[in-house]
Amino acid sequence: MDHARRIGLLRRRITKAGLSGLLVTHLSDVRYLSGFTGSSAALAVTRRSARLFTDGRYRAQAAAEVNSAKIEIVTGSPAVAAVQWLAAQPGAEFSGFDPIHTTVAEVSRLRAELPSKLRRSFLTEISSPLVEPLRLVKDEDELALMSEAALIGCDLFDHILTVIRPGIPEIEIAAELEHQARLRGAEGMSFETIVASGQRSALPHGKASTATLPRRGFVTLDFGIIREGYCSDMTRTVCLGKPKSEERNAYEAVLEAQQSGVSAVGAGVSCGEVDEAARSILRKAGMADAFSHSTGHGVGLEIHESPRVAAGQKTRLQAGMVVTIEPGVYWPGKFGVRIEDMVAVTKTGGQVLTPAPKALIEL
Amino acid sequence: MDHARRIGLLRRRITKAGLSGLLVTHLSDVRYLSGFTGSSAALAVTRRSARLFTDGRYRAQAAAEVNSAKIEIVTGSPAVAAVQWLAAQPGAEFSGFDPIHTTVAEVSRLRAELPSKLRRSFLTEISSPLVEPLRLVKDEDELALMSEAALIGCDLFDHILTVIRPGIPEIEIAAELEHQARLRGAEGMSFETIVASGQRSALPHGKASTATLPRRGFVTLDFGIIREGYCSDMTRTVCLGKPKSEERNAYEAVLEAQQSGVSAVGAGVSCGEVDEAARSILRKAGMADAFSHSTGHGVGLEIHESPRVAAGQKTRLQAGMVVTIEPGVYWPGKFGVRIEDMVAVTKTGGQVLTPAPKALIEL
Repeated sequence: MDHARRIGLLRRRITKAGLSGLLVTHLSDVRYLSGFTGSSAALAVTRRSARLFTDGRYRAQAAAEVNSAKIEIVTGSPAVAAVQWLAAQPGAEFSGFDPIHTTVAEVSRLRAELPSKLRRSFLTEISSPLVEPLRLVKDEDELALMSEAALIGCDLFDHILTVIRPGIPEIEIAAELEHQARLRGAEGMSFETIVASGQRSALPHGKASTATLPRRGFVTLDFGIIREGYCSDMTRTVCLGKPKSEERNAYEAVLEAQQSGVSAVGAGVSCGEVDEAARSILRKAGMADAFSHSTGHGVGLEIHESPRVAAGQKTRLQAGMVVTIEPGVYWPGKFGVRIEDMVAVTKTGGQVLTPAPKALIEL
Repeated sequence: MDHARRIGLLRRRITKAGLSGLLVTHLSDVRYLSGFTGSSAALAVTRRSARLFTDGRYRAQAAAEVNSAKIEIVTGSPAVAAVQWLAAQPGAEFSGFDPIHTTVAEVSRLRAELPSKLRRSFLTEISSPLVEPLRLVKDEDELALMSEAALIGCDLFDHILTVIRPGIPEIEIAAELEHQARLRGAEGMSFETIVASGQRSALPHGKASTATLPRRGFVTLDFGIIREGYCSDMTRTVCLGKPKSEERNAYEAVLEAQQSGVSAVGAGVSCGEVDEAARSILRKAGMADAFSHSTGHGVGLEIHESPRVAAGQKTRLQAGMVVTIEPGVYWPGKFGVRIEDMVAVTKTGGQVLTPAPKALIEL
């Protein structure tokens, strides 16, 4: 990962925003810019230099991970130390903080620790995010890692098909997925694994429970792994036994909607257009009300990132963004279906990062 | 869990703080007060009623989980809907929000959605937390769950001793721990499992890596599980082969410090006194500099809660609080040792919830 390049790009944005420096406290932003993976840190970036503040527990780790910034080990709050350092830099006038990732209490505390003449004026709310636009568009190293993570996910799906059978508790399916993920090099799961079977498939977020898989009915698997910090995310719905005709119809409609969403992806297309490409199919199938969520979201160092792929969203996709396309339909007390891929936006379209089979699998 | 009782206690605190209502957006606070476990929700509590706002994905789940508040399904932001509802209540004057859990951007957005005459005055920053003091002191149901979670942790430690041997990658130890945790009823791990062996034991936060366990040296295992939302947390350090005398000395000093910390726990004792009980032992052993972090932290629905068990902390322990006691020593490039228990504060002392063996185990 070329962290120095990212700091360089950020520095240009800081200058353009009329700031002398930026305080970065959101840990995945810190990781993105410096490579530091610890749980306590703040990064201060000025037009001329960058410094990472962390505590004594991370002395060795920071030295091993960080090249793009000088490291300073502090005993108190890394964010306070970072703001004090920013205020002491030559030419320091206004330093920005990100209101989306800074709590009201934290700002009060940081201001209180500034020299009194700077308390009101120095720390200023940035009007639009400076790091997020960089993170939205993944570079080659990131795309390679995300593809790797996504392929591990596909491999896990392949494996779990040999395990799924009636009578097994959902949590054992989740346990096996997670265990195999670890053995394939995952640092962990990117969110709590969803295994929703039978009537529970109608819960869009049905975390694996002690319920046992039924003899007949859908099983929705929605899971992701973390690989060197990057998240994967995919969903497949399979059927135990033979689907009823209403189940097959729902599956086919969701599959068509999902493929339509994937086909709509491409640089320059708005997120709302992608959502509509999927949603219109389900609308025509008379299932609009059963599709109770948005079509997808960005993914990267965090499982939910910008952009939102939702109705009316005007953000335009750019080459290098990675989004999920995951329409679903849900009828409480009956069943549900969801199918999800991760798709990397290219200049000419979208590249599916999760090429696991999507035709209905009957087990 | 008696959520209605908790809402009742909160209501008294709202009245006492001179507010007409409170906006609760921190998800573990929402869960604590309502039982709702979804990933998108806001809870509004007034002196007379309580209402939970969530989105369509959670319709069935909210109905199944929530008894202490009315449920309203919204299409936009749950927090915006909650604030608008608070402002529309009879007698509504000032509603509070928690500055520790609300970002600067979120407050601006919520204010913008209020009727214009209320924009400046209605939503007010609470001066001290209202929900946290309730959560600090665990009730019997919570203590029972936390004890259960902690005992699953002990059982996992017992199991993993049969797995640990030279040559196995750290991540396989983590994988096995996590798999067994799932099979014993865990919803997941409460943080990324730490398996730090050989020289890596000197990293206080050495997440399991691809490094293989050495023929001789320490292995530090720091892990926790989640059981019905509640976290466990424990650390043990074991030795592969025979410890050198400096390793044995360090282990004995940390064990004595840890036991001294545990013995100091009791209602009315300050957190700083507990920290000092552990720290003074390591200071006498000439290892003060190697103990580079605080002694412990509260634990509950979140892995890190108040109180902080750290030098100079004046917060006094109360019966029902649960804290970790986890001194450690670290010499980069050489080795480290940490031992950690979860301890429930009682009127007369502390009850160790993680009764796994602490005498040095040689494998």
